[in-house]
Amino acid sequence: MAAPGPVHEALAALPLVDHHCHGAVTADLTAGQFASLLTEGAAWPGVSPFDTPAGVAVRRHCAPLLDLPRHAPPADYAARRAELGWREVNRRFLAAAGAEVFCVDTGFAPHPLTTPAELGAAAGATACEVVRLERVAEAVVARGVEAGEYAAVFRAAAEEAVRRPGVVAVKSVAAYRTGFALDPGRPTDTEVTRAARHWAARGGRLADPVLVRHLLWTAVDLGLPLQLHTGFGDADLRLHHADPALLTDWLRLTAGTVPVLLLHCWPYHRQAAYLAAVFEHVYLDVGLALHHTGPARCRAVLEEALEVTPFRKLLYSSDAYGVAEFHHLGALCFRRGLAGLLQDRVDADELSLADALRIADWTGRGNARRLYGPPVSEPDGLSMSEAARDPGGRPTRKV
Amino acid sequence: MAAPGPVHEALAALPLVDHHCHGAVTADLTAGQFASLLTEGAAWPGVSPFDTPAGVAVRRHCAPLLDLPRHAPPADYAARRAELGWREVNRRFLAAAGAEVFCVDTGFAPHPLTTPAELGAAAGATACEVVRLERVAEAVVARGVEAGEYAAVFRAAAEEAVRRPGVVAVKSVAAYRTGFALDPGRPTDTEVTRAARHWAARGGRLADPVLVRHLLWTAVDLGLPLQLHTGFGDADLRLHHADPALLTDWLRLTAGTVPVLLLHCWPYHRQAAYLAAVFEHVYLDVGLALHHTGPARCRAVLEEALEVTPFRKLLYSSDAYGVAEFHHLGALCFRRGLAGLLQDRVDADELSLADALRIADWTGRGNARRLYGPPVSEPDGLSMSEAARDPGGRPTRKV
Amino acid sequence: MAAPGPVHEALAALPLVDHHCHGAVTADLTAGQFASLLTEGAAWPGVSPFDTPAGVAVRRHCAPLLDLPRHAPPADYAARRAELGWREVNRRFLAAAGAEVFCVDTGFAPHPLTTPAELGAAAGATACEVVRLERVAEAVVARGVEAGEYAAVFRAAAEEAVRRPGVVAVKSVAAYRTGFALDPGRPTDTEVTRAARHWAARGGRLADPVLVRHLLWTAVDLGLPLQLHTGFGDADLRLHHADPALLTDWLRLTAGTVPVLLLHCWPYHRQAAYLAAVFEHVYLDVGLALHHTGPARCRAVLEEALEVTPFRKLLYSSDAYGVAEFHHLGALCFRRGLAGLLQDRVDADELSLADALRIADWTGRGNARRLYGPPVSEPDGLSMSEAARDPGGRPTRKV
Repeated sequence: MAAPGPVHEALAALPLVDHHCHGAVTADLTAGQFASLLTEGAAWPGVSPFDTPAGVAVRRHCAPLLDLPRHAPPADYAARRAELGWREVNRRFLAAAGAEVFCVDTGFAPHPLTTPAELGAAAGATACEVVRLERVAEAVVARGVEAGEYAAVFRAAAEEAVRRPGVVAVKSVAAYRTGFALDPGRPTDTEVTRAARHWAARGGRLADPVLVRHLLWTAVDLGLPLQLHTGFGDADLRLHHADPALLTDWLRLTAGTVPVLLLHCWPYHRQAAYLAAVFEHVYLDVGLALHHTGPARCRAVLEEALEVTPFRKLLYSSDAYGVAEFHHLGALCFRRGLAGLLQDRVDADELSLADALRIADWTGRGNARRLYGPPVSEPDGLSMSEAARDPGGRPTRKV
Repeated sequence: MAAPGPVHEALAALPLVDHHCHGAVTADLTAGQFASLLTEGAAWPGVSPFDTPAGVAVRRHCAPLLDLPRHAPPADYAARRAELGWREVNRRFLAAAGAEVFCVDTGFAPHPLTTPAELGAAAGATACEVVRLERVAEAVVARGVEAGEYAAVFRAAAEEAVRRPGVVAVKSVAAYRTGFALDPGRPTDTEVTRAARHWAARGGRLADPVLVRHLLWTAVDLGLPLQLHTGFGDADLRLHHADPALLTDWLRLTAGTVPVLLLHCWPYHRQAAYLAAVFEHVYLDVGLALHHTGPARCRAVLEEALEVTPFRKLLYSSDAYGVAEFHHLGALCFRRGLAGLLQDRVDADELSLADALRIADWTGRGNARRLYGPPVSEPDGLSMSEAARDPGGRPTRKV
Repeated sequence: MAAPGPVHEALAALPLVDHHCHGAVTADLTAGQFASLLTEGAAWPGVSPFDTPAGVAVRRHCAPLLDLPRHAPPADYAARRAELGWREVNRRFLAAAGAEVFCVDTGFAPHPLTTPAELGAAAGATACEVVRLERVAEAVVARGVEAGEYAAVFRAAAEEAVRRPGVVAVKSVAAYRTGFALDPGRPTDTEVTRAARHWAARGGRLADPVLVRHLLWTAVDLGLPLQLHTGFGDADLRLHHADPALLTDWLRLTAGTVPVLLLHCWPYHRQAAYLAAVFEHVYLDVGLALHHTGPARCRAVLEEALEVTPFRKLLYSSDAYGVAEFHHLGALCFRRGLAGLLQDRVDADELSLADALRIADWTGRGNARRLYGPPVSEPDGLSMSEAARDPGGRPTRKV
């Protein structure tokens, strides 16, 4: 199906680093359960989640991997999926993704999900872990902590979490909790203690602006690349509070520290591209938007994201959650969309073929390797987690 | 002129539901008066309103319906329009729109305009009415009301207005008055009384934030679909306050109540699409932007609007006002833009033809029918207004 | 390389008015110095500024003017540039730009730059000057001024600055200093005096919100067209504060005064287009974004910018700074991008050829001439600066 040309061929064959995704469900799903995982919304009476760009793309591009015809009806799709069983379904799609490394956010699991190791095994790939810091903080408070000890205990817990083998990055969902229109400065100990006291009294998830700021600054102290949810997500979000441009003051203060990876970004991917163009430590991807906009539009989103982004600053992620279809579809959309735009530029003599192939390799794999370290599968290489703690290994890290 | 293919043919023949428009002027217009109605701005010395994408589209696509050559000069166009007279001009363009139903906002009429019945008669279509709630509230205050009675009297007036035959929806222009960065909660009786007292003392139009909130919540109580102006409009707007993402908290509070239809949306149509993807009761259109961006760009706007929008959530509207050219041009732009993008996806085997035809029918007509009920012209059907009050008839209504 | 067709030919031959640019460096640059001028960011270890859309475009479209092959390696490019010397390099690129007039912002010069006269001489073109008002205000304070005299002294200095021969416009970088979310009203004398006292005591650049407002209103009093930085820029910016929609209230208050030219605008060019469509005195360009997005994407940006912009309201600028490559590349991107979109519309019979040629001439030159007056090179014409002070000469000026 792919248009011919050497860039298409190169990207079709490139082992990707999916630098941000989640696990796949480890249970057989009813048709309704499966459909509800196709959407960032929910299952609504009378509105099938298949009747979306993502649903259409699943029927077109995933059905054949389940031995069904293209554009198979939703009922056939769900039935065949159940027939094959979750292990076989996961295996087929994860292998089809063609990734050499998956970096798995383990901090969001309302469904039973594959561990990183299980995901890697099913895919025949290396799997690394991304630690979601809100979950670490919430576990600290759930176990009980004196307000005055919160900062130290959270930091120790985070340090312990990132020492686990295979951890390559941390992540924050501050976008969901307070949004980015925050005081950018590091809060004082007194402020943190007071806020921790209120949180402990009130309970619930981490949503205090002081503690969210404190979490972001703790992330900087940890020294690992920091992934930030921005833009597109589910109904729990205020989209306009997740515009990464709102992070500008904080990015100015954190210049020279850890790499900051803006995830998803759509529909603020041009704002993210500006940030990546002017701040050395800022990177972006358009994960989630790839499979949700589908093969018909992912190229357009990539074109906008690449308008001013330095080619060293764009990464690939699927942000797939739950259904392994999305680990595959994200990769497929990325390969096709990027290949289409690069090949057209080569054909118009706007870009040399050598440059196009370099950009494909960088964005598909090289930029992530550079940030996170070489995959553990490379002989004699540092493990990704060891490399990630070695500032010397990555020119963009200064502390 | 249309590119060949079955999707183009289907959309060219589809009777549309134009779910939000205004009347056409019932007077002969001077060349200057006509030109000034071509723009959301005003007539400026030395800058012809014809020298816009919409003006170019009128000369290209409307001139032939007045027996003029394509790209006719503005002076010829205005002269021929005057020669034919407003009744004939309206008849030609309204019939050419090919709509089976027009839902007419009757609350904005600085010019003498067709009533819904007159519009429908000229078009050979059914016309329904959309009640603009700000106008109802302003009439209540203009008649004189005790501040403490404002809420009850406004509600009674709104209930009476929507009981009129043919009323299928209510509309708010809160975007123009305060914008959407409002406290999302329902105001208390005390707050409403105090605000009504201030308004009565101060006079002018409804622009008090408490009363705008109260109007939105009254709309919810009425139980009819609620149309909200968002995005693009005239100079009376603060565009960034009309970003529908600002409605998120209010949408969260109103989940499970009435359908909320985000009108126009451009340039925030991606934000609107996100809301439609995650909130069951949210729908969108890109009316107004269709004829103002014209055939050269309406497809691009539709493509962006459809990136993540469930196919059950996009509707067609023209938002035409004053000149019947725009009732026609909106329909033409919608048909061509949508057909172009769907046909290309079919040709690329990204979408089955059956799915493309279904999406065309849904967005052009079916989604509106589902929300507003079947048109009154259908034999043995509920009238649109009856259906609109029957929650059972629409799976998206929960109260 | 350009696609054939009469619109391409017309735009390729059209003498442009580059209504906003900066000088070119008057010194030989090391490879590193040159590379750092290719980016709105900075030179970062391990990330070549050539590895950007702009860098790729320089290697593709500028290398041949230095007698190098297309897509020449960065090292070859920098070496050849040094070999030719800055005078020859500037001469080649500035002449290749094909502009008849450059309007040069002389208020930002961290490098040694050509004066407007030197730029014009190297290009074989007329050069005019744009006075950056923040620089005038800062010079006033640097020389020492009583707080109570600040307003009068600044105004006198600005009036003197714009009386210099060849000055055609003023400019503000308020977007960088406070952003546009300002109280739109003219500050009182008392407010200005108090703010001037604080500024004198605190030192530094002009960043006080009262004084920035005062500067904008002083600009209105000067009577010349006012250029405003909006959108895209360097790391000193908060991008979201530079959304021109934030200027709405101020634009409403200044209607009927001086032309306001929104510069750059990306990624808020649709917002700028809305403002240009509804406010008589508002104009826009997409300078800076042209060469930074490059030939592969500048057309897309232009298409979005033109979606609703009246054709009398779009201007051309390069916003080139430092390297004359960008004076050339901006012009090349504008010519190709605009020709591509217009020619396609002509080919699709959406636009007549005569209209397309008129739009090309207006946006490339005519709109700027109309605003700033005819270039001094025209026999018997007013000089641009004289014309600029004659309200009768420009129908868009009312005071």
